[in-house]
Amino acid sequence: MQVCHRVGEVVQWRKSNIDPRVQTIGFVPTMGCLHEGHMSLIKASKKENDFTVVSIFVNPSQFAPNEDLDKYPRTLPQDLALLESAGVDMCFAPSAKDIYPQGIPLNVDEQRGPFVTILGVSEQLEGKTRPNFFRGVATVVTKLLNIVSPTTAYFGQKDIQQFIVLKVMTEQLFMNTTIKMMPIVRDEAGLALSSRNRYLCEESVKKASNIHRGLQTAAALLTEKSEVSRQELLTVIEQIWAPFVASGDFKVDYISIADSFALQEKRDVVSRSSDTIISCAVYVQDRRDPSTTVRLIDNVIVSKR
Amino acid sequence: MQVCHRVGEVVQWRKSNIDPRVQTIGFVPTMGCLHEGHMSLIKASKKENDFTVVSIFVNPSQFAPNEDLDKYPRTLPQDLALLESAGVDMCFAPSAKDIYPQGIPLNVDEQRGPFVTILGVSEQLEGKTRPNFFRGVATVVTKLLNIVSPTTAYFGQKDIQQFIVLKVMTEQLFMNTTIKMMPIVRDEAGLALSSRNRYLCEESVKKASNIHRGLQTAAALLTEKSEVSRQELLTVIEQIWAPFVASGDFKVDYISIADSFALQEKRDVVSRSSDTIISCAVYVQDRRDPSTTVRLIDNVIVSKR
Repeated sequence: MQVCHRVGEVVQWRKSNIDPRVQTIGFVPTMGCLHEGHMSLIKASKKENDFTVVSIFVNPSQFAPNEDLDKYPRTLPQDLALLESAGVDMCFAPSAKDIYPQGIPLNVDEQRGPFVTILGVSEQLEGKTRPNFFRGVATVVTKLLNIVSPTTAYFGQKDIQQFIVLKVMTEQLFMNTTIKMMPIVRDEAGLALSSRNRYLCEESVKKASNIHRGLQTAAALLTEKSEVSRQELLTVIEQIWAPFVASGDFKVDYISIADSFALQEKRDVVSRSSDTIISCAVYVQDRRDPSTTVRLIDNVIVSKR
Repeated sequence: MQVCHRVGEVVQWRKSNIDPRVQTIGFVPTMGCLHEGHMSLIKASKKENDFTVVSIFVNPSQFAPNEDLDKYPRTLPQDLALLESAGVDMCFAPSAKDIYPQGIPLNVDEQRGPFVTILGVSEQLEGKTRPNFFRGVATVVTKLLNIVSPTTAYFGQKDIQQFIVLKVMTEQLFMNTTIKMMPIVRDEAGLALSSRNRYLCEESVKKASNIHRGLQTAAALLTEKSEVSRQELLTVIEQIWAPFVASGDFKVDYISIADSFALQEKRDVVSRSSDTIISCAVYVQDRRDPSTTVRLIDNVIVSKR
């Protein structure tokens, strides 16, 4: 496996190895700390492309000043070994200075250079708690797609709003990359795999699996009935989460029941006349170290009938 | 010459005609109403590339609601004839709906979809009078570059801030296109060619050539002396423009004396230790129809010594 740290090395690697007229590149952008979720994206890319490229870059511009940029887990040697054994062709692991030549202060007012914003699908849900998150994601993905020039890029369903934002971006900026969403990989109890799960002790990880249980129960109800009041769906979820909210393990940021195109909330009556995304963000307080709170997201899709 | 109106036709044209590994595409994006300034860009592209593509698209997102989107001159049949006779290989003339699938209301608050902003070089000079102008330009150029995939794109020095914005954009988003700036083409009296000149009667066009005379005189002074106080340069320009300001022909929007990299004003003493851009925007009132006022821009570069 080739490891590139500089932009120029990637361009050189592409030129020396790939004939863009007949060969395809699959691309999996990551922030490292790889888990089975990432590996499922790599597997899909390997299956569908001549070459598979993975990037590892903890992108500062998608972190707010109060978030966990500094303590975000960085495990490059283990990550590279995993990628090597998965048969990845090239790993791009740049520095922040390579990707942001003018620097990238976390304070948005001090930022300089080009930024990409996707209006209409960035402001709600995750965007409410994290106002510049999707601007950071869209900007870094634009840069990475231009550097790697992949045929297809793979993203996980766990970050479903990210996928929708990037789909609007690539389609409406006419980028020469198709993006694909792959299913969420979960642990045995149902918790969606996330690099941030490792901030939590075993007991809290177990409790966190009830996040999915709540969403799944609501999804089952909608699947069965085809038409349910929004309030009924919310109540089902809240009932399952109630004991954990009462014990201080969970603090709910949002529950959303939205359409899958524009991420607009389905009001009053939720029907299966279009795809429905039931998604949430929940703060989970660690049992072992109560000063640690981790914000976890999850979602299920109920497809239209 | 091939004429494409849809995005898919351009992609098809590229695939059928061009081998990206060995052949080059030169690209000249325009808003139509072509004049000798555009033709000089096309000439440069023809000389340096295997294929030359020109786009004609009056881009709504770079117009403010109070600006001249509706009355901006549109001369497609003449433009196509000119391009044909200049030996252009392909002309891309899309509709607004093709470029902005979600629509493009002029009111920024109602806009949806991806937008590209270049922080640090968009806010000053033109950006002061036209706060969303460079966001519109950067967004449409991103779309066009992704659609056309040119090796090199050509821009005129008249819109020098636009060139600097797009240089930062293409370099720092790692786009696979080099951008080049070509010299301003002027009429015999020195007025920079612009599609908006045609809003003015002959007499006002003649008077407008004094815009350049002012800048040129300041440039000559700086070239000769190598170090001049900012105030002295401003005074030289203002003295030349004074009669036209007094008669109501000119209203000065700004005069800028800035460095050529970050477009920051050179304060106090202006020296030739770095390139200097002397630029301006002037409102010219039409003599024949005083209800018509045209905002013209111009600049000269004094290169470092």
